[in-house]
Amino acid sequence: MPVTTREVHLVAWPKGEPRLDDFTIAERDLPDPGHGELLVRNIALSVDPYMRGKMTGVRTYTDPYELNAPMVGAAVGVVHASGDEDFPKGTVVLHQEGWREHALLTTAEVRPVNVTDSVPASAYLGVLGMPGITAYVGLVHKARMVQGDTVFVSGAAGAVGGIVGQLARLRGAERVIGSAGSAEKVAYVTGELGFDAAFNYKDGPVAEQLAAAAPNGIDVYFDNVGGEHLEAAIGVANDFARFAICGAISGYNATEAPSGPRNMGYLVTKRLGLQGFIVSDEMHLAGEFYRDVAPLVAAGKVEFRETVVDGLDNAPEAFISMLRGGNTGKMVVRLDGGE
Amino acid sequence: MPVTTREVHLVAWPKGEPRLDDFTIAERDLPDPGHGELLVRNIALSVDPYMRGKMTGVRTYTDPYELNAPMVGAAVGVVHASGDEDFPKGTVVLHQEGWREHALLTTAEVRPVNVTDSVPASAYLGVLGMPGITAYVGLVHKARMVQGDTVFVSGAAGAVGGIVGQLARLRGAERVIGSAGSAEKVAYVTGELGFDAAFNYKDGPVAEQLAAAAPNGIDVYFDNVGGEHLEAAIGVANDFARFAICGAISGYNATEAPSGPRNMGYLVTKRLGLQGFIVSDEMHLAGEFYRDVAPLVAAGKVEFRETVVDGLDNAPEAFISMLRGGNTGKMVVRLDGGE
Repeated sequence: MPVTTREVHLVAWPKGEPRLDDFTIAERDLPDPGHGELLVRNIALSVDPYMRGKMTGVRTYTDPYELNAPMVGAAVGVVHASGDEDFPKGTVVLHQEGWREHALLTTAEVRPVNVTDSVPASAYLGVLGMPGITAYVGLVHKARMVQGDTVFVSGAAGAVGGIVGQLARLRGAERVIGSAGSAEKVAYVTGELGFDAAFNYKDGPVAEQLAAAAPNGIDVYFDNVGGEHLEAAIGVANDFARFAICGAISGYNATEAPSGPRNMGYLVTKRLGLQGFIVSDEMHLAGEFYRDVAPLVAAGKVEFRETVVDGLDNAPEAFISMLRGGNTGKMVVRLDGGE
Repeated sequence: MPVTTREVHLVAWPKGEPRLDDFTIAERDLPDPGHGELLVRNIALSVDPYMRGKMTGVRTYTDPYELNAPMVGAAVGVVHASGDEDFPKGTVVLHQEGWREHALLTTAEVRPVNVTDSVPASAYLGVLGMPGITAYVGLVHKARMVQGDTVFVSGAAGAVGGIVGQLARLRGAERVIGSAGSAEKVAYVTGELGFDAAFNYKDGPVAEQLAAAAPNGIDVYFDNVGGEHLEAAIGVANDFARFAICGAISGYNATEAPSGPRNMGYLVTKRLGLQGFIVSDEMHLAGEFYRDVAPLVAAGKVEFRETVVDGLDNAPEAFISMLRGGNTGKMVVRLDGGE
């Protein structure tokens, strides 16, 4: 039986911070799945910082979103009607047709996921999904963190940063330091997530707060933020420090080119290495990630919190809020029927 | 027979561009060499950009020069009186007690060098010395240049940059691009050194000139200059480009923090890697360098020009001129008796 579904469209390229009227909700009829197809009812949608880069109309490493068309993004859903007996109705799958209530997918476009008491479906959008792999690849393979390192991560209360800090601790970091954007987040980072120190970057100059939190400097910086944070990290870096450059959310809504770090000369004198990366290049490491991290999550050794917004109509607002730092942990949009 | 020698002292930390009166010439008596010692008469002294960093009174990766004391730096000299029969009078040696006419050294502090018709003693201050190793290590080990890369090097007419470009060509670069500070240098770089393209960075915005010279982008950047050059290189970099960050001479005389690259966001979207390095950390690669590069130099396959200034009294001026770009190829101070 065909369904009428609803989906979020981008209707204008946002200038600066996205506004609600840059988005609209459209309806679409989906046919019954053909052979090898699945009609999936989404139960949790991901909104992620990288999506802002797809709203510029400019191709970077990824194609921009088209206007007046459904946007892509990670989602977890339940098979509602199946054209493949290996994916019976009720199977929970991860796929990339988020921002909508239902999706018609081929079986090649989905991956079944294992939902348990300790691992909800939405975990595959966060700690066991793209954010988790991002944290792992950046920390282990790009920053090449080793036992005894002091590790600093910005956006430490976010979906990626919170995992970075916990993995650093589990892998023998000497000290783990985070920054976040509110007192509540700082308390979460040092409390629930077990960081050794954290600060609210809105409380004063990042350089001063970081220097106070890192009296012996830092060996690894995992950068989600860019801007002032990156300059501060360069400033306190120890010789031979390694930076995994994952994102620069501080500039995503910028309409003018931000000023760059004024202390780039330290790259030479401290022999710093900065390596930008994008997780989609690194999916050959996904197996290693799951082997290492999935048991830790199942055993409750990696905390993950979610900030949940209900309903497709609120997805644009969830996205805008996430860019402002309105989330603690992964920002997830829950749809009817999601747990 | 003891000698009275002359040496250059720093008498004040330069503010901004060093001035001649930041330096003075002092006399010193040196005794006859004891057992295991050599009295060396210097014939060629090196002045190098890194020395500016030792004139700040601040320890970075290296101790600052002391005021009113002889400065160190690479030099080639001839054994004048010997306390070790393995180093007879007349032996040509490389050592680190430059900025003076004679030096009293232990044999552990010198390395004999092989002077031939095609390889003058001063080559061990340049193409076969620290600048050559710097070029090799940065290109091969830090930027990990591979066949088919387009390589950009700033300061291309300098002691390091000229070797970088020639090594890149010999190792199969698709295209080698350089920047320099005069029309004469540009002609030298594209003529004698065989670069595919070069531009005078004083002729206009580096970003525009580099984009015109690199229509297919760049895969490797060897940075001697920093500042505007680094920003321009980030701007035209291809995905997965590797930058060896060797120096930032554009800022060495700066009295205020320079503005940084405004396009650091490209580190993520283009997955760029920037690696600062200092050659003194990399001396385990010196053997590999000599095996690879010395035969090329002996065979005339690597061009090296020198800008020669005569006399110890002119060493400060040679240094100041080098920081201004007054040299093409290696800046060398020749002393009496040097070829």
